[in-house]
Amino acid sequence: MAMNVLVIGSGAVGSFYGALLARAGVHVSLLCRSDYAHVKRHGITINSLLGSWQFKPAQVLHSSAEWQGPADVLLLCTKLVPGLDQAALIRPFVDAQTAIVFIQNGVDIEPELQAAFPDNEVVSGLAFICCNRMAAGEIEHLAYGRLVLGNVPGFVSAKTAQLAALFIRAGIDCQATADIVAARWQKCVWNAPFNPLSVLSGGLPTLTILQNQEALVRNIMHEVVAIAAASGHQLPANVVDDNITKTYNMPPYKTSMLLDAERGQPLETEAILGNAVRAAHRLGVACPHLHTLYALLKLRELSAIC
Amino acid sequence: MAMNVLVIGSGAVGSFYGALLARAGVHVSLLCRSDYAHVKRHGITINSLLGSWQFKPAQVLHSSAEWQGPADVLLLCTKLVPGLDQAALIRPFVDAQTAIVFIQNGVDIEPELQAAFPDNEVVSGLAFICCNRMAAGEIEHLAYGRLVLGNVPGFVSAKTAQLAALFIRAGIDCQATADIVAARWQKCVWNAPFNPLSVLSGGLPTLTILQNQEALVRNIMHEVVAIAAASGHQLPANVVDDNITKTYNMPPYKTSMLLDAERGQPLETEAILGNAVRAAHRLGVACPHLHTLYALLKLRELSAIC
Repeated sequence: MAMNVLVIGSGAVGSFYGALLARAGVHVSLLCRSDYAHVKRHGITINSLLGSWQFKPAQVLHSSAEWQGPADVLLLCTKLVPGLDQAALIRPFVDAQTAIVFIQNGVDIEPELQAAFPDNEVVSGLAFICCNRMAAGEIEHLAYGRLVLGNVPGFVSAKTAQLAALFIRAGIDCQATADIVAARWQKCVWNAPFNPLSVLSGGLPTLTILQNQEALVRNIMHEVVAIAAASGHQLPANVVDDNITKTYNMPPYKTSMLLDAERGQPLETEAILGNAVRAAHRLGVACPHLHTLYALLKLRELSAIC
Repeated sequence: MAMNVLVIGSGAVGSFYGALLARAGVHVSLLCRSDYAHVKRHGITINSLLGSWQFKPAQVLHSSAEWQGPADVLLLCTKLVPGLDQAALIRPFVDAQTAIVFIQNGVDIEPELQAAFPDNEVVSGLAFICCNRMAAGEIEHLAYGRLVLGNVPGFVSAKTAQLAALFIRAGIDCQATADIVAARWQKCVWNAPFNPLSVLSGGLPTLTILQNQEALVRNIMHEVVAIAAASGHQLPANVVDDNITKTYNMPPYKTSMLLDAERGQPLETEAILGNAVRAAHRLGVACPHLHTLYALLKLRELSAIC
């Protein structure tokens, strides 16, 4: 019997990975807010490196009242921004057998869902992707796409392995890991400098930031490595050098936080910076560079409101 | 015989303090660039807390060719921005008896002029003032105005004492100090957090910054205190608390750097932040918060150019 997946969050990430699973034969339904009418009628067009196709969700939902479950997997792809109560949002869709799989940015974001759903399988996912919602029901996949999935606190379940196989079948690199929390810190090594610096600099691409302030970027990266180590996740010794080299070799890139800022959307400040700074304080790790960036992003949010 | 003063820099600060000295009976001339024609014909209107008056310079100059010297005092009030060669700018106006008095923001800015004019009296000056150039030949003095003057490396000459007396006679608080370098670091304790944070936050006034990120502000202030101490200038033990209290009690205030940013003018990044960070590195003092702010301002300048 085909797997039943419900995607929560019909932005670029949720639409894209949902469409991939549908392409692999999964029954994929979609909770849609703003684009509901369009998607209900037309589905979603995916224009991807992997080809172009139409994604017709099994069910298109506007609210939980219409939902015909249960879901084997709930794929949570909302952005982690202030004021969103994720647990309340997904609770009506969660049954005993539902695995809660989230694909989101940030560190230390697992505890909230673990606490809210102590009896469910919780799978933490990281996407390395560049994709955009161009219009209602229209997703453009521009680059990358690799997924990393792992159960918390640290193993790979049969369902996670099955999901990874489905993503691979659909054409995307997907790795299942028994230490997803370390993988999350490792992604944070890159996100923590480049996301805030791109916004606070007034819109510089990654390469310009690196070429002009490599020392600062390295200092921030080393702070993330130290916090990860203090929290029990020793990252590879060369992780900073690797990220520097990789970024020099990437095309100049606008970070996701910069794109959010340019669109006037809320930034993932808490998930990426705030959680890292709070973990540092809890663990007694000094992180003056991160703290400065975090404080500046918080101030910037205030000035955007004023 | 009345003192001859030549003011270099006909912005708000130069015009205002020049006009004060003229009011005290000094022969004050003015080197004017953009507003030359207007000022030559009409002089400068000062609208001040201290009253309104017309300042008619003894000579209005567009270049050194017209200058009829010598000057007893050259009052240098240019902004310290990249690409300005101050020594070259003032050299044609400097005679053996000329004291070079500069009223400028920043720390560690004395060595350049001391090196360029080793045989002249060099007087370092700090203005605590809120004044603006509203139009050609029109200066608005909104608040404060206190001056602190001191010879470098650290004494008060007869001429400096005379200047201080003249400013006081003109109605402005002016203090002559034998440790102007310490006074400059002390002003930097306030400037180093609030100037960059006001710009990098996207335009917040001082009070909002302080109410939301007091810990960050204090951390930055403590770094400045440590650099000053390492450079031989122990600031008062309560300088950080005093600055915090003072800022809570000030009306919400747009910093000079924020005003420059809003006007699209170059920022005094190097004089205020760069020199402090370089001094810290030279002296082996850690200043991660300052370094982050400095790097961010440099990145912001890049993005403004792009």
